Amino acid sequence: MSIQGKNFIGYQLSAQGQKSFQSYVPAEDKYLPETFFSATPSETELAMALAQRAALPYAAVPAIQRAGFLKAITEEISALGDELLERAHLETGLPMARLQGERARTINQLLQFADLVAEGSWVDATIDTAVPGRAPAPKPDLRKKQVPLGPVVVFGSSNFPFAYSVAGVDTGPALAAGNPVIVKAHPAHPGVSDLTAQAIVTAAKKTGMPEGVFSMLFDNGFEVGTALVKHPVTKAVGFTGSFKGGMALYKLGQEREEPIPVFAEMGSVNPVVILPEKMAASALQLAKTLASSVTLGVGQFCTNPGLVFIIKSEANAEFEAAYRDEIEQVAQATMLTKGICENYVRLSGQALAQDDVQVVGKTLQPVTAFNQAEALILKVSGDTFMSNPTLQEEVFGPFSVLVEFDSPEALKKGIALVKGQLTISLFADPAEAAAQTELIGLMASKAGRFIMNGVPTGVEVCPSMHHGGPFPAATDARFTSVGRHAIYRFTRPQSYQDWDDALLPEELQNANPLGILRLVNNQWSKDAVKQG
Amino acid sequence: MSIQGKNFIGYQLSAQGQKSFQSYVPAEDKYLPETFFSATPSETELAMALAQRAALPYAAVPAIQRAGFLKAITEEISALGDELLERAHLETGLPMARLQGERARTINQLLQFADLVAEGSWVDATIDTAVPGRAPAPKPDLRKKQVPLGPVVVFGSSNFPFAYSVAGVDTGPALAAGNPVIVKAHPAHPGVSDLTAQAIVTAAKKTGMPEGVFSMLFDNGFEVGTALVKHPVTKAVGFTGSFKGGMALYKLGQEREEPIPVFAEMGSVNPVVILPEKMAASALQLAKTLASSVTLGVGQFCTNPGLVFIIKSEANAEFEAAYRDEIEQVAQATMLTKGICENYVRLSGQALAQDDVQVVGKTLQPVTAFNQAEALILKVSGDTFMSNPTLQEEVFGPFSVLVEFDSPEALKKGIALVKGQLTISLFADPAEAAAQTELIGLMASKAGRFIMNGVPTGVEVCPSMHHGGPFPAATDARFTSVGRHAIYRFTRPQSYQDWDDALLPEELQNANPLGILRLVNNQWSKDAVKQG
Repeated sequence: MSIQGKNFIGYQLSAQGQKSFQSYVPAEDKYLPETFFSATPSETELAMALAQRAALPYAAVPAIQRAGFLKAITEEISALGDELLERAHLETGLPMARLQGERARTINQLLQFADLVAEGSWVDATIDTAVPGRAPAPKPDLRKKQVPLGPVVVFGSSNFPFAYSVAGVDTGPALAAGNPVIVKAHPAHPGVSDLTAQAIVTAAKKTGMPEGVFSMLFDNGFEVGTALVKHPVTKAVGFTGSFKGGMALYKLGQEREEPIPVFAEMGSVNPVVILPEKMAASALQLAKTLASSVTLGVGQFCTNPGLVFIIKSEANAEFEAAYRDEIEQVAQATMLTKGICENYVRLSGQALAQDDVQVVGKTLQPVTAFNQAEALILKVSGDTFMSNPTLQEEVFGPFSVLVEFDSPEALKKGIALVKGQLTISLFADPAEAAAQTELIGLMASKAGRFIMNGVPTGVEVCPSMHHGGPFPAATDARFTSVGRHAIYRFTRPQSYQDWDDALLPEELQNANPLGILRLVNNQWSKDAVKQG
Repeated sequence: MSIQGKNFIGYQLSAQGQKSFQSYVPAEDKYLPETFFSATPSETELAMALAQRAALPYAAVPAIQRAGFLKAITEEISALGDELLERAHLETGLPMARLQGERARTINQLLQFADLVAEGSWVDATIDTAVPGRAPAPKPDLRKKQVPLGPVVVFGSSNFPFAYSVAGVDTGPALAAGNPVIVKAHPAHPGVSDLTAQAIVTAAKKTGMPEGVFSMLFDNGFEVGTALVKHPVTKAVGFTGSFKGGMALYKLGQEREEPIPVFAEMGSVNPVVILPEKMAASALQLAKTLASSVTLGVGQFCTNPGLVFIIKSEANAEFEAAYRDEIEQVAQATMLTKGICENYVRLSGQALAQDDVQVVGKTLQPVTAFNQAEALILKVSGDTFMSNPTLQEEVFGPFSVLVEFDSPEALKKGIALVKGQLTISLFADPAEAAAQTELIGLMASKAGRFIMNGVPTGVEVCPSMHHGGPFPAATDARFTSVGRHAIYRFTRPQSYQDWDDALLPEELQNANPLGILRLVNNQWSKDAVKQG
């Protein structure tokens, strides 16, 4: 398929604007030839008008057909073959093996949501049958299920060109639930975005979805994204990226005349706590595991372990030495964009320049391409960490700060100080952990996912994954961008009171024609409802 | 029990301030003798410090004991006996029978949440077991459940002194989920609030809950409420009341350095649509039903049917005549506060003064006490309604606007124009409704609860009730203040990765010691998890 660089307005391609940009190849510091046209205000308006027109018809498309649409998207993505991977490799600098894995994950995510809506129980069908003779007033028949919110605007992230982008963690559940989606393509991988949008549009046409169910707009500035979030037709926003970007969109969403939910997943420093007995038993293994996690994907994960908390003990020296040896061997690798690389150089340098900071280790490997990041591990005392906010902030890249506390009590104060996190990890022997009820309660209160004896990188796509967390990890701790629950960001409950059975949505009809699990008169059941 | 008018700061009573106020008796236009002291900044600070200190210990209290706490609250409320009802009657002007019913409903609500947390399945336990041999990477063991958000600030409403106030729809689920609660007492019923707070504190002490699990502060201005929403310890807010009040709190919550969820249920006009065949068959009954619903509780319900949409037809004249006859018989009744009564007089008068407005009917009954409201029904054409925003706004009280459209198409435009609603109702014969797929889809998109052949007043407390709706009915359409789902306003999912079984919360342990329903490897089950 060819990349045309035009905006996807429903089923039309459109390039009415004068503003344009090109794909940057970070490893080679050059630009690719295709031109991408930023959407004009009238193109944005048309995409939103189509989304509005599609909203009720698409909401009425039976779940099994929406599942078919999602499956068709995965087939079209697969059909793009190596062209998609190669373009992603050029635009992101990420290695092919990683991109193959990410593509598989993206397809898996979409299929999980296809299965979820095809099975149907996710609508949370809840039925309370009438009690006409109840005193003092009759009890009505009430039935409830989840329904779509309406058009959802999606902002992909730069660091996952497939899994958190055009057909990623926001688009999948939003479409699955019955919402039209309007994507603002990330300018760091416009070619990948273009190809993916082609796949979605082809799938939508093949499965007979109403025009407007999907649109995608280009822009390498902020105008188009701002207009999309402010547009009255928009009912929700999904975003993955920086704190600054997420909060800007969140504020736009809240300042509207009609405020809308803006779920922004904004990353975190993912503290890792190592207790002394575990350290004594496994110092070398811990160093190896951490060095690998910190530098995975050039540290460009929102689950990168940016803080490691330890307590003064004899084994620490062995750990640090091993950590240094590991880091010194890490190959230099290209970051996603020139801006990300420049930020990394600036912020890691700023951390290094703070008072009382030691270097545990940095890579000794040679630069092999443009925009490469040097892995760097710093060390500070608990007191230094507590008193210096600069050391508490995320540095996006292969960077981490080791904090050595004098005592378990001091470490607890360190945990109490950190803000909301996507993840928090505890390395401890079972008996050592069992004795730490208070520490564990405190750690749990800080994060969305609590890992025992493991590193935070690696976000398993499954129903029990929570990828979110207390602010500022996300704008709303009650929602996740990964896993089954992610769909509820884009739906709302609706009750039907005293409806004729034949007029009810199938999920709520007495016969339970879809065979879903329902809460009927406070009992979970897949049975038909017996009336009277 | 005696009303002391002091702030409930944990287990202490405190009245350090100089600012005070008294209970107003709307029916008699007089004040009761007790003095209520507005909380000072240091009292507010202490209540929040106690809430913070109680948060983790209270979250760790086993669910069965939290259920016992809620049950104890209902017992203490019951033990207040007629004193509570009589005080409420004085402070709100509501009749005793209504207050008895509302007290029963309040107790029922609390018991439903006690049962919910005692049973335990509400935590949405989700388990995916490890697959150590999976390629290319092992699958970790992941388990997820809902956990409390932290301290919740509750603002009760004036119109339900029990059910939506100190121990009402926000406090019940917030406490049930494991969150400390800080109530800002509504100044329209401070005596009722004082007695109810005594009941909660007594129950908390008797069941051994940590101090700080509940506090309640008085203020008849905005300072204390503002300070509570802005306080960094506050993690969520629940509110029922006016659009203006709800939005003020919502904005405060969003403008914090750490934004927090503010669920405000802000009422609506609850459009009722009557289709022609239904009108022809049941004009007299419809008039009786609507007149009763519009004037129930002096129209002081957020589900009051403030708009009735009909289509030009012969039977309309009969309907209007009967509607007039009914309204003329409605007794004058006292409104909740002087301010609400003055607003009603102003806003109903303003609607009446618009161009092209007819009076369908108004009460002819005599005034019998202070602060009474005259029931009033107006009528306008569809065109007049569409072109005049004043007629589209809520008038809180026994007031409704009948809108006659020329055609079904014009009526659809009227529906398209209305904002988000708590409820929407369709009166139609079954065959007539079955032919209206598009109208029904449009109506559904506007409201949280969709009623067939029934009026919106009467909010059944059961799992399938949704009491909320698209903005501006509520600040977040995804949540409800009534029913099982209400608890999720105040909880967040948390994942546990690769934990030792013995260290996991009971809800997630292999043996399923609580016997709850769980999603295990994508299958719903109450069985133990078989490992390996």
